[in-house]
Amino acid sequence: MKTMDDLFLHLVKDIYYAEKQILKALPKMAKATDSAELKKAFEQHMKETEGQVERLEQIFDMLGKAHRGEKCEAIQGLIEESEEVMKDADEASVIDAGLLASAQAVEHYEIARYGTLKAWAAQLGLKDAVPLIEKTLEQEKAADKLLSEIALSSVNKKAA
Amino acid sequence: MKTMDDLFLHLVKDIYYAEKQILKALPKMAKATDSAELKKAFEQHMKETEGQVERLEQIFDMLGKAHRGEKCEAIQGLIEESEEVMKDADEASVIDAGLLASAQAVEHYEIARYGTLKAWAAQLGLKDAVPLIEKTLEQEKAADKLLSEIALSSVNKKAA
Repeated sequence: MKTMDDLFLHLVKDIYYAEKQILKALPKMAKATDSAELKKAFEQHMKETEGQVERLEQIFDMLGKAHRGEKCEAIQGLIEESEEVMKDADEASVIDAGLLASAQAVEHYEIARYGTLKAWAAQLGLKDAVPLIEKTLEQEKAADKLLSEIALSSVNKKAA
Repeated sequence: MKTMDDLFLHLVKDIYYAEKQILKALPKMAKATDSAELKKAFEQHMKETEGQVERLEQIFDMLGKAHRGEKCEAIQGLIEESEEVMKDADEASVIDAGLLASAQAVEHYEIARYGTLKAWAAQLGLKDAVPLIEKTLEQEKAADKLLSEIALSSVNKKAA
């Protein structure tokens, strides 16, 4: 990681790995929840994530690089947290609250990373990459907002 | 993690560990940057973090629990990333861009976690905990906003 190009590629690989992990986790989370709203949110975000992965592959192509991720400890930790909740919690409402919390931490991770990628792509003159990153960033923000609404309206109240 | 009380305590321990790690990382980051603005932001956030640790200790006291963190892989990964940038990058401007990106990912992690803690504290009837969490949450949001401003105004431009 010596130059801005290195940093940018590193971060694209990092978030590519993260999206692939999220794609594996979301069906399990959708299956584990009892909340129809939360299930729908997870399933909808799974479809969005497929598009996000494709957009990252377009960016790899622009850079002339292979579609290859790089292990990201942060996302690994957050996904493991959701797995622990699914394994340990007894009540459906507690599982839902835990899944929701993990999902929001994942969304915030992605918001931070795509925000940085967008700024870096602009500086590096990767003009075609900027709108791709922006589209994903808006989806992540909307997903986080939806999860907050679900948390406040139903899941958290039931768990208390 | 069987009940909401367990989830809440787990998350307090998780973020307590994270804040302690951040407290160790920030002086190194402030030392590694060439940007006066970024140095000031890191130093200011270090002081805020000390207060955030104290507020978490007040919450431990409310719960009648020891002030004890629990290892959090997510924050560990983000801090390691900033260490790699400090080690690998050649130019000061690249170091600054990398440090800024890691710091924003950390802020977003904290925003997600304190947002969840605030909602859970309210549900669990921990009325005295809510304003403590809210104060920290507002500081984290302001820190992230300041970092975005620094990124857009100077650091990122220099690195390109």
